[in-house]
Amino acid sequence: MEKRNEVMSFERLFKPKNVLIYKADMKVSFFIEGFLRQGFNLENLYLVSSKEDKLLGMKCYKSIEDVPIDTIDLLILSVRRDILVTSLIEILSKKKINFIHIFTAGTGEFDEEGTKIEGRIKKILEDNPNTRSIGPNCMGLYCPQGKIAYYSSFPLESGDIALIFQSGDLHSKAIKFGSRRYNLRFSKGVSIGNCIDIQISELLEYFNKDMETDIVSVYFEGLSVLYKNEGKILLKVLKSMKKPVLFMRGGKTERGQKAVLTHTGSLATKDSIWKAIFNQTPIIEVPPSLDELIDYMYIFSKHIQRFKALDRIVKYPTNKNALVILWSGGFGILATDILTELGLNLPLFEGTKLKKLNEIYPIKIGSLANPLDVPWIVSSDIYLRVSKAAIDDDIDFVIIVTDAWKDLEEERFKNYYNNLVGIKAHTESLDKIFVIILPYYPSESRKKFHAKLINDGFLVYPSIERAAKSFLKLYEYGKKRNIIV
Amino acid sequence: MEKRNEVMSFERLFKPKNVLIYKADMKVSFFIEGFLRQGFNLENLYLVSSKEDKLLGMKCYKSIEDVPIDTIDLLILSVRRDILVTSLIEILSKKKINFIHIFTAGTGEFDEEGTKIEGRIKKILEDNPNTRSIGPNCMGLYCPQGKIAYYSSFPLESGDIALIFQSGDLHSKAIKFGSRRYNLRFSKGVSIGNCIDIQISELLEYFNKDMETDIVSVYFEGLSVLYKNEGKILLKVLKSMKKPVLFMRGGKTERGQKAVLTHTGSLATKDSIWKAIFNQTPIIEVPPSLDELIDYMYIFSKHIQRFKALDRIVKYPTNKNALVILWSGGFGILATDILTELGLNLPLFEGTKLKKLNEIYPIKIGSLANPLDVPWIVSSDIYLRVSKAAIDDDIDFVIIVTDAWKDLEEERFKNYYNNLVGIKAHTESLDKIFVIILPYYPSESRKKFHAKLINDGFLVYPSIERAAKSFLKLYEYGKKRNIIV
Repeated sequence: MEKRNEVMSFERLFKPKNVLIYKADMKVSFFIEGFLRQGFNLENLYLVSSKEDKLLGMKCYKSIEDVPIDTIDLLILSVRRDILVTSLIEILSKKKINFIHIFTAGTGEFDEEGTKIEGRIKKILEDNPNTRSIGPNCMGLYCPQGKIAYYSSFPLESGDIALIFQSGDLHSKAIKFGSRRYNLRFSKGVSIGNCIDIQISELLEYFNKDMETDIVSVYFEGLSVLYKNEGKILLKVLKSMKKPVLFMRGGKTERGQKAVLTHTGSLATKDSIWKAIFNQTPIIEVPPSLDELIDYMYIFSKHIQRFKALDRIVKYPTNKNALVILWSGGFGILATDILTELGLNLPLFEGTKLKKLNEIYPIKIGSLANPLDVPWIVSSDIYLRVSKAAIDDDIDFVIIVTDAWKDLEEERFKNYYNNLVGIKAHTESLDKIFVIILPYYPSESRKKFHAKLINDGFLVYPSIERAAKSFLKLYEYGKKRNIIV
Repeated sequence: MEKRNEVMSFERLFKPKNVLIYKADMKVSFFIEGFLRQGFNLENLYLVSSKEDKLLGMKCYKSIEDVPIDTIDLLILSVRRDILVTSLIEILSKKKINFIHIFTAGTGEFDEEGTKIEGRIKKILEDNPNTRSIGPNCMGLYCPQGKIAYYSSFPLESGDIALIFQSGDLHSKAIKFGSRRYNLRFSKGVSIGNCIDIQISELLEYFNKDMETDIVSVYFEGLSVLYKNEGKILLKVLKSMKKPVLFMRGGKTERGQKAVLTHTGSLATKDSIWKAIFNQTPIIEVPPSLDELIDYMYIFSKHIQRFKALDRIVKYPTNKNALVILWSGGFGILATDILTELGLNLPLFEGTKLKKLNEIYPIKIGSLANPLDVPWIVSSDIYLRVSKAAIDDDIDFVIIVTDAWKDLEEERFKNYYNNLVGIKAHTESLDKIFVIILPYYPSESRKKFHAKLINDGFLVYPSIERAAKSFLKLYEYGKKRNIIV
């Protein structure tokens, strides 16, 4: 507990000046490859291996004594579990260690012997209050600004999303899928495993103040059996969060809780307790779906970035009025059903507004309703004008349904694209949310169009349902922010 | 009504010996391109145009009299609505027409004048009982065996899925997305529009007997105001269906019904009535999502084809026990939650079965539970053996979660792939369902692996949720088949 009261910064955890891998071998070479890719200064990366002289061209030291520095910012501890305790004691007796990432798995999540090992390590760390640790049973850290990543496939660019995940694989997939689907970028990510030292609550507090982080995304399985008070502390911290926290809980169902036991060995928590927690805190609950979590990170990140770029306070939607613009009667009806079932409204145009729309576009085909079904004119300036006239303060959420275009160089496409840019600018000038729906299927033209939209900062979802659910999370957060102080 | 009592076959509608487009111009050149692509004999394609001498290199006749044949199997009628009635009268006075596809839109769905026009056309068709018609306000027909398609992008190969859609755009998208996502292939497809003559019930009866069709997929918006008894007839036909019918209804919500009015001008039907209909018939209800409909067509088609290839009666799952095999603790927990929430069971291994699994794979990492989390061994024969031992009659549904592989030529991948093939064969030899989950993100390696799996006949879904919902539709159908006679 005393640790928590110290002014302890995790800055060095994510941006270590030097790193020591103990023990390095080919099995953990992905760590080295990750550091290489991120451009970490290899002079500050030390490898200890009793077997190897060199790994990926880098010198290996035979033992911890040979390492020519006294203070290590980050130690990656990768030894068999039966020598974990002795290794740790030896290293701490010879070097000053600021942070340890215990990579070793097969401890508390595996059997009783493993739980005992965790207890011993906890004791050692308590005796060394200046040494903090993540893990065991975790993949570790990702921080582009710190030039560290445990996989070489992670993006080099930094972003504003922080990740705290009790699953290394889900942590990796959130980064991999998120960056490739939507160009998501991250400030800091940590796969924390069994949490025998650093707790989720501490990381949340850190990210709450971290200037590089706007959104925190958590994958939670349960509380460590070693920290009886962590539940209360976590609740207090969740209440205090000033930034959006997207919180996905594994083990929501009873059957899922059984599965948690063999994964991180965490104490499962009841669904009813969590319902109360979500009600009392500004935290946004995410269903057990990585796809949904990534969808929500996307809308929150883009939304906040948009306001930050204008140096303004972030505004969230206060109503649920959607306008759908498309070129398809059938799709429009499905959209109406889906949005209605999700709790959104589709206001119809009336009075002077309808008159104005009719003046701009005296319709012969399609429908000046909502969905606004306006075939054939997408490349004309009428499309831009009629859309702009339809989007006003009565609309909170604008959805344009599109499809692939074969030729992105042709004039018709360029005019259409300029219309999209214009409608987006108009919508966002009113502080409303603008998304494009581009359904997924394998095709080169679809891929090119999608990449262009994503690169140009459009919010692009593969289905109306996913876009609408994402919008509703923004709305939910806005509502919570007004209610919960 | 007399028409329905005749022995009227729609074979000629889908496989016309000749086609006449009246009037042909560049706006409807996509029809010609579709026929060209499908390899329709162009000597049997006649164009009438008062303006053009040639279209896409094909001769245009000036008037209907100039067309050198007396009987037309399929007339595509594309004229302005104000000359629709007179054109029809003129054509019918000069040629024998078997089927008409009235492409013209802006009739019953548009205004009162349009409704009047529909009434007049209905009267004309009643006076010509040997002439049947689809439309107006529809895209028309697709039948690879008849070498006809209204878009050149539709597949050339024939399949076993028939489509009856009250939306041309959704019909096109079902074919386009379905074929590109999952290699779906279709026997016959029809976008039927406002249904002033041929009714959905008639097409259902036809497909029920059609040897080329195994599954019928319907997008329904409402009943034509011109056919008061169609509701009763439709119910009777739905009850009589011997093949799986996937039925997606637009206008499920009240707000959606408002949208239906401007689309096909159909009579909306109440949700409560439909609930009763789905209870009384073997029809499978599909939520208002084209993605879901495509997912379900995929599993039904592959499932039926599998049994047909063995010349056996199709068996449907009778229980909901799932086994998940993966390499990820976190993903396994989410999978457990998702499957449990959807109503599936994940039986745990016990007794002799668990002992056997332990003998094959004395586990040091991962978990011999369900999800079966077996890291590192996917390329070894242990993976195949332990999976086969885990899959027995207690399991109805096997889900393997995978990810992209960089190099499909490397030995490790080939061994893994052979394992997948072996597990699939074993699962299917027990008449159980086997699916692979390969999450979507843009990447060349993911694309190649996905294409390979699809080509080799694997059922591949982008998420556990979508796979499980698809499995549940098979289960629901099996249950209905046992209950409803």
